[in-house]
Amino acid sequence: MTGSTNQKKAVILEGRVIDQNFSLDPITKKIFLNILPPSMYNNQADVDRLREELIKQFGPVRVPLELMQAIPAICRKAEWQVTATIGYNGNDWELINLEPGNNTDRHYGLAIDIGTTTVVVYLVDMLTGDIINSASDYNGQVVLGDDILTRIFLATYENKLPELQKAVVNTINHLIEELSERAHVNPTEISAVTVGANTTMLHLLLGLDPGRICREPYIPVVNNSGFIRADKIGLNVNELAMLYAFPSVGSYVGGDVIAGVLVSGMHLDSDVSLFVDIGTNGEIIIGNRDWLVACAGAAGPALEGGVVKCGMRAEPGAVERLSINPETYEVSYKTIGNEKPVGICGSGLIDCLAEFLLTGIINRQGRFQDGRKEFVLIPAAETGINQDIVITQVDIDNLMRTKGAVNAAVETLLEGVGCGLDSVSKFFTAGAFGQYLPIESSITIGLYPDLPREKIKLLGNSSGEGARLALLSNKKRLEAEEIAARITYFELNANDSFFSRFVGSRFLPHTNLDYYPTVKAKLIERGLLS
Amino acid sequence: MTGSTNQKKAVILEGRVIDQNFSLDPITKKIFLNILPPSMYNNQADVDRLREELIKQFGPVRVPLELMQAIPAICRKAEWQVTATIGYNGNDWELINLEPGNNTDRHYGLAIDIGTTTVVVYLVDMLTGDIINSASDYNGQVVLGDDILTRIFLATYENKLPELQKAVVNTINHLIEELSERAHVNPTEISAVTVGANTTMLHLLLGLDPGRICREPYIPVVNNSGFIRADKIGLNVNELAMLYAFPSVGSYVGGDVIAGVLVSGMHLDSDVSLFVDIGTNGEIIIGNRDWLVACAGAAGPALEGGVVKCGMRAEPGAVERLSINPETYEVSYKTIGNEKPVGICGSGLIDCLAEFLLTGIINRQGRFQDGRKEFVLIPAAETGINQDIVITQVDIDNLMRTKGAVNAAVETLLEGVGCGLDSVSKFFTAGAFGQYLPIESSITIGLYPDLPREKIKLLGNSSGEGARLALLSNKKRLEAEEIAARITYFELNANDSFFSRFVGSRFLPHTNLDYYPTVKAKLIERGLLS
Repeated sequence: MTGSTNQKKAVILEGRVIDQNFSLDPITKKIFLNILPPSMYNNQADVDRLREELIKQFGPVRVPLELMQAIPAICRKAEWQVTATIGYNGNDWELINLEPGNNTDRHYGLAIDIGTTTVVVYLVDMLTGDIINSASDYNGQVVLGDDILTRIFLATYENKLPELQKAVVNTINHLIEELSERAHVNPTEISAVTVGANTTMLHLLLGLDPGRICREPYIPVVNNSGFIRADKIGLNVNELAMLYAFPSVGSYVGGDVIAGVLVSGMHLDSDVSLFVDIGTNGEIIIGNRDWLVACAGAAGPALEGGVVKCGMRAEPGAVERLSINPETYEVSYKTIGNEKPVGICGSGLIDCLAEFLLTGIINRQGRFQDGRKEFVLIPAAETGINQDIVITQVDIDNLMRTKGAVNAAVETLLEGVGCGLDSVSKFFTAGAFGQYLPIESSITIGLYPDLPREKIKLLGNSSGEGARLALLSNKKRLEAEEIAARITYFELNANDSFFSRFVGSRFLPHTNLDYYPTVKAKLIERGLLS
Repeated sequence: MTGSTNQKKAVILEGRVIDQNFSLDPITKKIFLNILPPSMYNNQADVDRLREELIKQFGPVRVPLELMQAIPAICRKAEWQVTATIGYNGNDWELINLEPGNNTDRHYGLAIDIGTTTVVVYLVDMLTGDIINSASDYNGQVVLGDDILTRIFLATYENKLPELQKAVVNTINHLIEELSERAHVNPTEISAVTVGANTTMLHLLLGLDPGRICREPYIPVVNNSGFIRADKIGLNVNELAMLYAFPSVGSYVGGDVIAGVLVSGMHLDSDVSLFVDIGTNGEIIIGNRDWLVACAGAAGPALEGGVVKCGMRAEPGAVERLSINPETYEVSYKTIGNEKPVGICGSGLIDCLAEFLLTGIINRQGRFQDGRKEFVLIPAAETGINQDIVITQVDIDNLMRTKGAVNAAVETLLEGVGCGLDSVSKFFTAGAFGQYLPIESSITIGLYPDLPREKIKLLGNSSGEGARLALLSNKKRLEAEEIAARITYFELNANDSFFSRFVGSRFLPHTNLDYYPTVKAKLIERGLLS
């Protein structure tokens, strides 16, 4: 995946881990029609003549007024050889585009992942199902408000909903422009758009007030917005293109998570899987083809670089991997884009905490053994910012809270549904961190459970990949609807067990080391445990 | 029916002759919902919560984005006691309006008859089916172009389609304003609109190019436009209100005629009926529940006052009835609104021609017996225009052409379908003339066939009444679709028999007097025939 200008673009995610078996049955279809021209012996009206051809193959097809106005000229210009694009909105077919001649070899859709930070747009060839091209950028809302809560505040109390909506739509439109130029596709040739987004991002995209999402009893305006005409929100695609957003389960389990579950296939599996998406919020789903339970909770912004002193987003110059020599405490690292280091992103932080533990720099309570306040990872001279890149005790405390919250949530959910960890056959990690978090380090610090490594599956940008599936397969889209309808929400905040586990899990990797046998073995091997 | 200012308004038509049996099943429904408010134990999203209540009763209901934005505030303001208006578009239900509280006692629709000359709007109470109020005015397009052909020319070759569309929409909007003020109804409470109009009027209303309607092979843009959002054409009703226009059969058999057939009920009858709608064009339908055949042809503008020297539309001051004393040739007359005579309208012209024949002023060829060039009906002093109101030989020739065209069309159609006049059980007359043309005089001059008088049924403004039926009954609306689909079009212009009959029918009442036994008897009684 490429961002054309590294300065501007965030680093985005690639890769499809799970092979999905589905037949191509995209939301929109293109079909070539060779229509008998009107004559004195057949003086049917133009629109009805066209519609009759479509009805033969699809049943009733609605023709919007905009196209009625255009049909006579298009059909005559093309001597009644035209290509119709029609879309199924779940109830009936609608004509979306009519082009002169045979254009059935050009059929495009967009799958969009709208993250709080990053927007990724995939231009999809609806004939092959392939991603032709993709592009990403910061969500334009970032400059208005960095985090979700700020944006909700701005939308609800500062009358900035229209501005926020415009910001994300502009971001998407710029990406569409870039993609369509690169691929020589006219935006009017894009007939369908699918969106994976968290509940707040979806509200802001649709111009819906998100104010009640973050206030008890946490009520979104809509969970399932169905099909909407893309031009209603100003997307620069065909004016009649259909927009489908993944349904949410509630304020804290959004369409992005449903898309992830869809991509994982856990909803079809007879075995039990765990699905974890960690960002500022963490969402966890457990279940199989018979049942699905979700919980969500604040993980804190530590992994997104929000509160860690030298933390940053996964951008060029961010330290993304590191290791520490147990003898010399020398730090080896790798930055994104191999640029001079300017900070440390989520995956680097996880590595750092794990290495601190495995080298004895910190103890299992997460305290520096020698009582120091900070550890210099990279001296100023090596950096691109002329400042030491350090990890402080406060940073470590923040990271411990994040791992504790996720860990406690997983355990509470497992207990709540009466499942042991050993009955989990697959562990899916999704979202930005799901792609890049180092598995070993994540287990070492207790963020991920200590499972056999082959059970752990990185889903990549499953929100975008889910959007692609929904674009290409009505069956997959219906599966997503079903997933959303089937998920039972498990309220962590109303659960005493969660809080006691949260408090109790503030050891590395865990209060009870027996839950982490492979980490225990490493610590013993290094002489840090006996 | 009232036009509030007689100077401005045309005289419009009233009366329902045919009793239609149908159960109220309007295009839109209103339903009161007492919704369980959100809580920590039930934190469903607002839109989904509302939709679920509707689904219980109607199955899937689409919620447009515009309403999603409004739902949270309306529901909370009303403490979750709201009234939903939903509409069925033939395939699925859509939410059209949401009001706080219980508003189910207020449910309104519009039935509109768009004539080339006059627009009539009926405000209908969807709870009772009754017409609350009606208003009419000239079609605002009249000032741009008097007749259909001029308007088609303006739309297609002078880029005046937007102006013509705006003109008729403005006319309708003014009438809506008038009606809603009088009835204390807010236009946003109007959730459905049905339209009966000829094919050209429908094209101009929808902003569709009518250019091919009048050129071989006579192809409209659309015959069946289905459901359209009323705000797409700028109607001042609820922005989500549904607009349904009666389907046309072709360029010359429009939705107004289909509405008329629906009102007549002839499509359900085992006996054969004839349906005649005479304006500038005449449309004739023959058939029963098993078959329906239509023809159409130019009747000429004579009856609409277009070419007759002192002719005028049916407005105040128009002579609408007259009789002539066979001894003294003294003329008795009645004007519309009992005002001083200023001209003579269609019904007056028919009476005049019949009286001329029955008093021997003209012979059966339609020539003045004494060779004069004109006959003074009303001397200047009695008129409101200080000019004699006269009928000239040229006027009579024009009227003879009209009656000849209609008569020849009816006979050609009867012959074409292999029916004798004696097998016609009912003769329906529709449209402006259907309401007012004097039956006896119409038969005397041979415009109507010489049928037993009880077989002749005046339908009144059947286009508007049909619109009311479609508004109130989905069953009736589907019947209309079926009528349009069932009608076979019979091309008069391709028929030699029509031309020979047209030429041959230029006697009063007919070349063959045996077809008009009651007229023959009158002529004999008056000593004009032996």
